[in-house]
Amino acid sequence: MDILGGQAGGMATPHFTRLVIHGVGLLGGSLGMSVRRRGMAGRVVGLGRSPERLEHARRLGAIDELTTRPEAALDGADALVVALPPAQIRAGWRALAPLLRPGMFVTDVGSVKAPIVAQAERDLPKGLLFIGSHPMAGSEKTGVEHGRDDFYEGAACILTPTARTHPDALALATAFWHALGARIVVAPPDRHDRLLAGLSHLPHLVAAALMQTLGRDWASPAELAAIAGNGLRDTTRIAAADPAIWKDIFTQNAPHLLASLDALLDVPQEWRAALDRPEPDTQALGLLYAEGRRARAALDHRPADAE
Amino acid sequence: MDILGGQAGGMATPHFTRLVIHGVGLLGGSLGMSVRRRGMAGRVVGLGRSPERLEHARRLGAIDELTTRPEAALDGADALVVALPPAQIRAGWRALAPLLRPGMFVTDVGSVKAPIVAQAERDLPKGLLFIGSHPMAGSEKTGVEHGRDDFYEGAACILTPTARTHPDALALATAFWHALGARIVVAPPDRHDRLLAGLSHLPHLVAAALMQTLGRDWASPAELAAIAGNGLRDTTRIAAADPAIWKDIFTQNAPHLLASLDALLDVPQEWRAALDRPEPDTQALGLLYAEGRRARAALDHRPADAE
Repeated sequence: MDILGGQAGGMATPHFTRLVIHGVGLLGGSLGMSVRRRGMAGRVVGLGRSPERLEHARRLGAIDELTTRPEAALDGADALVVALPPAQIRAGWRALAPLLRPGMFVTDVGSVKAPIVAQAERDLPKGLLFIGSHPMAGSEKTGVEHGRDDFYEGAACILTPTARTHPDALALATAFWHALGARIVVAPPDRHDRLLAGLSHLPHLVAAALMQTLGRDWASPAELAAIAGNGLRDTTRIAAADPAIWKDIFTQNAPHLLASLDALLDVPQEWRAALDRPEPDTQALGLLYAEGRRARAALDHRPADAE
Repeated sequence: MDILGGQAGGMATPHFTRLVIHGVGLLGGSLGMSVRRRGMAGRVVGLGRSPERLEHARRLGAIDELTTRPEAALDGADALVVALPPAQIRAGWRALAPLLRPGMFVTDVGSVKAPIVAQAERDLPKGLLFIGSHPMAGSEKTGVEHGRDDFYEGAACILTPTARTHPDALALATAFWHALGARIVVAPPDRHDRLLAGLSHLPHLVAAALMQTLGRDWASPAELAAIAGNGLRDTTRIAAADPAIWKDIFTQNAPHLLASLDALLDVPQEWRAALDRPEPDTQALGLLYAEGRRARAALDHRPADAE
């Protein structure tokens, strides 16, 4: 098994003999396209439930071969990336465990990490090189037909080692995602989930709640269409994401999301206090806005690769 | 005075002898560039407080001539567009009134309309062709240096007639903004302000509140920079807008904004109820998300010109 061969950005690029991608949607399909373009695997194998969708992915160049049978996919495999929705990743480790051999590189792309990693550490055999990954590439679109072989370039990829993670798993995942163009960030699973609750899941909830508010009794669809400016369009773009995916993510990360929502709900009371007066407190409104603007400025400082 | 000459999109394009733009920032400057490119005025006159900024606007092609003296600007003028912040527009009518002659076309570009229009109808002389305008073009940038001569193309422009508005004022404003490429929407001032509270001002408040929450105790600036994805960036883009402008808009539209904020604050309680259980209610979370998504879909149906 030639795991570390070649060079990319001063770091060895991994090469796998047989890389299995479980779930070939937008993320899994883009992963296959990216790995194949860079020659990072001898064979890229798509594992899924629908032969038609797997064949579609093969035609689009996301995988070399396909199967619906885990034991066939994993026979001789030295790498597995699970790219299913979080609840399915978490529930799937137990069935996969007997098919995984020692030394194999195993990761997932779930956007909630603590439940997935804890379950993996319970269910997977010792001697695997397992680590949780969260590549923060995405889109409100879904499906392999929107996949791209540069999908992970420039994205942050958060790796979530624990005390039980083999150092080689962290090194290998770092090299793997780095070779695909991602910036590596390392955080424990629980810190990851808290950060993502605030920085990703809460914005999705807020965008949805804002559109719910406007749709309920504020404006007709015709008024929304006629008057919505780019501000509203941008602010609510992620409300167009797939509810089936997001109900799952919200469920998996419910405690942290709830905490972030409660933190958010403290803030409008300060706005209410400044607005709800005989004469609005213009200065206070400006200070509140400026506080948000200062925090927002941090987003404009995209860091260099954190490795 | 050759008000209606030429044709654009089947509608006569107005032509003014002397068009005064009071306030030559992003909106006023873009207006000057747009009018000059289309030859819609013999002279475009910039009126403001700072000779340096007016001269800057002249060099950028936004105006033909400039002055800091209202009586000089308005001498012989047949059109006035006030492009100052809402509070200044509202407060400025009284001083302008003695300088305006009957038949003159007068409008403003303020993003809050009821206070501005009500004050104008109190202070301005009879016989003017006055109507409030709100061209919904904008940016988190400010200043004439970001102005463009296609700034209003494709933007909605809301005209806010009242029972006191002369029909010729509505017709002239319709033709004027249409010639600049805007889609015309007509709504009474109070309906405008309610709609804008929900569709524009509330999203700005929400974007600010979301960044306040994340900045206070959720993530360090380094974490924000490292982990923020496009979802958060889009959702909070308008939090980067100028607090000096938005504190003014919020102040002018405080009652409607407060009502929209209270409508919004009802919704998270439904999310809380679905999240805050021993087992989150996944189905309810999906239904809430889907409701927001349905409302969001209206924004993708950009209407044809509403005239």
